[in-house]
Amino acid sequence: MQLEMRMNSLFDELKARVVDGIDGLYLAIVQDSGSDEVLMTAFMNRESLELTLETGVMHYYSTNRRRLWRKGESSGNTQEVVEVYVDCDGDALLFKVKQKGGACHMGYRSCFYRRLDEDELKTTQERVFNPAEVYT
Amino acid sequence: MQLEMRMNSLFDELKARVVDGIDGLYLAIVQDSGSDEVLMTAFMNRESLELTLETGVMHYYSTNRRRLWRKGESSGNTQEVVEVYVDCDGDALLFKVKQKGGACHMGYRSCFYRRLDEDELKTTQERVFNPAEVYT
Repeated sequence: MQLEMRMNSLFDELKARVVDGIDGLYLAIVQDSGSDEVLMTAFMNRESLELTLETGVMHYYSTNRRRLWRKGESSGNTQEVVEVYVDCDGDALLFKVKQKGGACHMGYRSCFYRRLDEDELKTTQERVFNPAEVYT
Repeated sequence: MQLEMRMNSLFDELKARVVDGIDGLYLAIVQDSGSDEVLMTAFMNRESLELTLETGVMHYYSTNRRRLWRKGESSGNTQEVVEVYVDCDGDALLFKVKQKGGACHMGYRSCFYRRLDEDELKTTQERVFNPAEVYT
């Protein structure tokens, strides 16, 4: 009951967006709770946000696959929630997490592994896992 | 000419999303270049991204007002670009910036000034400016 109240009061503050024709989405920004590195961004619907708060591990809604997605369900690279922040407009949430392995499906710690340097995108990180071995 | 080449090769890597019925948008996440605090998130279209890279100060596309928006045009709280990162999917960019004043229109340093604590959103920052004085 208490969790339900918490959910309802939270959703009163939120304002969902329509992304690629899918209604009811909130933007999630995910930051490493230790280093403050931004690891990834993804969308959540109400169900994935409720599951994230209930279980303490990050769940998203995949706009490509059009389904709920528990981060790490294939790779094992789960994200444990440490803190949750809501932005002024209520359409974005910031999650500070403990990241197991790497957040990026390309094998990097962060999805933002490419920096714009003059006229090219330069890879700034080393891979922490081999995607070919992890996603089999 | 060189800037144009840089733009074209960058846009080849990007994948725009449709948000609230507006096509051609990229997600921008903005982080303080000194503290690594996440300051805000907003959307950009091609024009605002080009202007950002050309001028070195952040420009967005406001999905509410449906127009280009130079950050700080009303408040004076501009954002100077320090580094630009692109995510694996090419639909999100991470900007490390030097923030003048506060990023949030509510007067806070960051738009993520509310933390979810049990059953309430708790304000975690002090205001750095008075919105009533700044937005007149």
